[in-house]
Amino acid sequence: MAANASLPPWFEYRVTIHPHHTDYAGIVWHGTYIAWMEEARVAWLAAHGLTFADWLKAGVDLPVVDVGLRYRRSLTLGDTALIRARLEPSRGVRLVWQYDIQNAATQDTCVEGQITLAPVDRATRRVLRRLPEHLQLKISP
Amino acid sequence: MAANASLPPWFEYRVTIHPHHTDYAGIVWHGTYIAWMEEARVAWLAAHGLTFADWLKAGVDLPVVDVGLRYRRSLTLGDTALIRARLEPSRGVRLVWQYDIQNAATQDTCVEGQITLAPVDRATRRVLRRLPEHLQLKISP
Amino acid sequence: MAANASLPPWFEYRVTIHPHHTDYAGIVWHGTYIAWMEEARVAWLAAHGLTFADWLKAGVDLPVVDVGLRYRRSLTLGDTALIRARLEPSRGVRLVWQYDIQNAATQDTCVEGQITLAPVDRATRRVLRRLPEHLQLKISP
Amino acid sequence: MAANASLPPWFEYRVTIHPHHTDYAGIVWHGTYIAWMEEARVAWLAAHGLTFADWLKAGVDLPVVDVGLRYRRSLTLGDTALIRARLEPSRGVRLVWQYDIQNAATQDTCVEGQITLAPVDRATRRVLRRLPEHLQLKISP
Repeated sequence: MAANASLPPWFEYRVTIHPHHTDYAGIVWHGTYIAWMEEARVAWLAAHGLTFADWLKAGVDLPVVDVGLRYRRSLTLGDTALIRARLEPSRGVRLVWQYDIQNAATQDTCVEGQITLAPVDRATRRVLRRLPEHLQLKISP
Repeated sequence: MAANASLPPWFEYRVTIHPHHTDYAGIVWHGTYIAWMEEARVAWLAAHGLTFADWLKAGVDLPVVDVGLRYRRSLTLGDTALIRARLEPSRGVRLVWQYDIQNAATQDTCVEGQITLAPVDRATRRVLRRLPEHLQLKISP
Repeated sequence: MAANASLPPWFEYRVTIHPHHTDYAGIVWHGTYIAWMEEARVAWLAAHGLTFADWLKAGVDLPVVDVGLRYRRSLTLGDTALIRARLEPSRGVRLVWQYDIQNAATQDTCVEGQITLAPVDRATRRVLRRLPEHLQLKISP
Repeated sequence: MAANASLPPWFEYRVTIHPHHTDYAGIVWHGTYIAWMEEARVAWLAAHGLTFADWLKAGVDLPVVDVGLRYRRSLTLGDTALIRARLEPSRGVRLVWQYDIQNAATQDTCVEGQITLAPVDRATRRVLRRLPEHLQLKISP
C-alpha cells in the first residue's frame, strides 16, 4: 500500500493466538477477529487519552453499525496477529475504522476490514448529531 | 448413578456442537461448557415460569460465586451435548446446580460440575438473606 | 421485502438471548451474531442432509472469506432472535448466504448481512474449482 | 497469604477489560476468566521457553481435566485484571495451576482458582505416565 500523506498512520495492537481463539480447523475462528478489532479501538482511544468512563460520563454510547471483513490468509495457534487500525478522517458523526490485520512475523495481510460506529445518547438511544466537543477534540487528528 | 427418591429429576437441555464451540484440538474448548450451563439454567427458569425480566423487576441479580468442573470425555464437532441440570434442594439462599453433561448419542458423561449462584440486591450488590417470596415459590420443588 | 419467485425461501433458526451473548450495554454484543449465523448455516446443511463429517470425508473445508453486516436494531436479554438465512443461487463455487436477523416477537429486522464461504481442499488449502458432485447436489435448489 | 519459601513466585499476566468480556450486568462475564487463565498459562510456558509447537512436535496435548473457581469481587469495563498464576510443585504427571486474579489497581482478589491439566498422547488420547524429559526440564522449578 503506497504511503498516503493525507491518512493518519496505522495504530498497532498485537495479540498472541491462544487455543480459545481457534476452531477445529486449527486456525483462528473467523468471528474472533471482531473481538480483537474492538480491543484495538479501545487501545487507540486509551492512547488518545479516552477511557470508557469518559464516554459514559458524557452520556454517549458507541454501538457498531456496520462491519465489513475480507479474509485472505489464516492465522494459527502460536502466531502473533498485528492488528493495524486507523480512524478515517471524519465523515460526519460516524467513526469509520479501517483495519489491516497481519501475521506479525511475515507482515502478510490476513484480514482487511472496516468497522463503523455511530455515537448515540445513552438515555434515548438516538444517534447524536455531533460528538461532545471535548471528545471530538481528543479523537481529531 | 443410582436413582435417589429425594432428588429432583434432571432437567435436559441439548446443544449441537458448532465450529465456534471447538478449538484447534478438534474438540469442544473447555470454557465453552460454562456458556451451555448458563443456557441450561435460563431454560430451567423459563420452564418454571421465570424470565430474566422477573428477576430484574424484583431487583435481584444472580451472580455465579463458585464453579467446579471435572472433564471426563471430550465432545467433537457434530456431536450433540445433553446438558442435564438439577437445582439442589435449598441450602440457605444460595442456588446450587448440579450438572451431568453427556454425549447425547452414547449417554457417556463428558463433564460433571456444580455451579453456585448467590442472589444479590441489584442496587447495593449485597447478598440477600432470602429470595423474594414469589421467586422462591417458583423455584421450590 | 417483496416476494421474489426466483429466490429460495428463508430458512429459520431461533436463539434465545442469554447473558453470555450480551455486553455491558445490556444488548447483544455485535460479534455474537457471527456465531449465530454459523449455527444457522450448520442447521441449514443438516436440514439438507449434510453433516460436517460429510464435508470432512470429502476432503473439503469451508472457510469464511467475506462478512458484511449492518446493525439496525439491538436485541436484549430474554429476547428471541430469529435468524433467517438463505443460500443464494449459485454464482460459481462460492457459497453466498444472505441473512435477515429479526426480533422474533416483533419481526423487526435487527441485523442484515451476507457471508461468503469458499470451499478449499483440506490438504492443500487451495480453493476448489467445483464442489464434489454429491455435495453440490444436496445444496442445489 | 503468608510468604511460603517452598512455593514458586506468582507469574503475572495483565488483561484490560473490553466490552466483549462483559455481560448485561456491566461486569466481566464469569466464563471469561477461563480464557484469561489459559492465556496466562500460555504466557508462562513462553516465558519458560516453550511454545505450543514444542508440545505438538513432542506428540503431547494438554487438556484441562479439572476447574475450580471462587468469585469474590467483580471486575468492570476499563479495569485491568492482574492474573497471577503459579504451577504447583509436581504431584505426578498432572500440571496443577493456582490462580489469584486481582483488580490491578486495588490488588483486591476477585477470583481464586485452580486448573489441572493432564498430558495425553495426541494420537491415542491416552494420559501419559510422564512428560517427555526435555519438556519436564523446562517446566521444573
